[in-house]
Amino acid sequence: MDNERLQKQIKFIVEIDKAKQVFRQNVVIGTERNENDAEHSWHLAVMAMLLAEYFDNEELDILKVIKLVLIHDLVEIYAGDTFCYDDKEHENKEEREKEAAKRLFSILPEDQAREFEELWNEFEESQTPEARFAACLDRLQPLILNYNTNGHTWKKPGVTSEKVLRRNEPLKENAPALWEYVKEVINDSIQKGYLKR
Amino acid sequence: MDNERLQKQIKFIVEIDKAKQVFRQNVVIGTERNENDAEHSWHLAVMAMLLAEYFDNEELDILKVIKLVLIHDLVEIYAGDTFCYDDKEHENKEEREKEAAKRLFSILPEDQAREFEELWNEFEESQTPEARFAACLDRLQPLILNYNTNGHTWKKPGVTSEKVLRRNEPLKENAPALWEYVKEVINDSIQKGYLKR
Repeated sequence: MDNERLQKQIKFIVEIDKAKQVFRQNVVIGTERNENDAEHSWHLAVMAMLLAEYFDNEELDILKVIKLVLIHDLVEIYAGDTFCYDDKEHENKEEREKEAAKRLFSILPEDQAREFEELWNEFEESQTPEARFAACLDRLQPLILNYNTNGHTWKKPGVTSEKVLRRNEPLKENAPALWEYVKEVINDSIQKGYLKR
Repeated sequence: MDNERLQKQIKFIVEIDKAKQVFRQNVVIGTERNENDAEHSWHLAVMAMLLAEYFDNEELDILKVIKLVLIHDLVEIYAGDTFCYDDKEHENKEEREKEAAKRLFSILPEDQAREFEELWNEFEESQTPEARFAACLDRLQPLILNYNTNGHTWKKPGVTSEKVLRRNEPLKENAPALWEYVKEVINDSIQKGYLKR
């Protein structure tokens, strides 16, 4: 193939296939199998299509939101998944993921490498409306999965209802109706024994 | 929860988690595990971000393309995956999938049910520029996976290079540079013994 640009793009498409082997903490509903990053990112993207109406900002660029959630976990191909309730693992997360981003996105042609790195930074910084809504979805989706798997991940050591509530706080300001739902789920999960008070 | 609309949306989000258990014919690169519909759809969506420039139509609505690929296989949750090289299975595919679409999308609030059904129909009919590009991606992605797994699916009974070439024909007219790549991959795969001439 003499088309150098396409060659780089195909190489990247092959490389990110590995996201299907980066496993998260939660399991797929009705199974004992951990969800992977590709599945998680797809689920967030469909949720973005459905739930944008709850975001407290009428100017939301939904294409941008979807791009952000599609690529937000790609760096984990090299940096691995970091459990959100593990303080120790979080210590060098930022550094590990920045290096991974550089390494992964540099496979792409320069303009697209820049675009993907900018999208990833935007997600990480969580300042723009689109990145804030993407963060909301990234919190809400594992909550829905855990609620529907008898609190699978919430039963791990060190997880409490207070921590889960705090983890979901981006929803409080950005998507009040979804925040109401989160609080109901957490209360019901305490009742059902899925989550320690 | 007294928000009936949100309740329906969450129910749908939980239901489509099952796409993570609908397995396709090809395997994830470097593994013996079959790829599932959620992973496949995610991969197509990222490919849409990267490869739109090869589509022979400057007016392409990339958000629409991404929506189409994100939801195009959801009906398989009820209708199952149909192997593209199995003529027998294809006989009642359309009918099975239409029923599945009706059943699945009716979980959603009426306006979103309509939107999702229209998107799915648009993909199936493959007439709009967006649906034609989505079809190109849906052909190209398994070709890339098969090429990178020693021709995994191509070794099944009844698959020949001629059939694979024909399957990829949407690329010929719609994305000439990608079609050149497809032909190179097929020729090289015949050389390498991944694919029967």
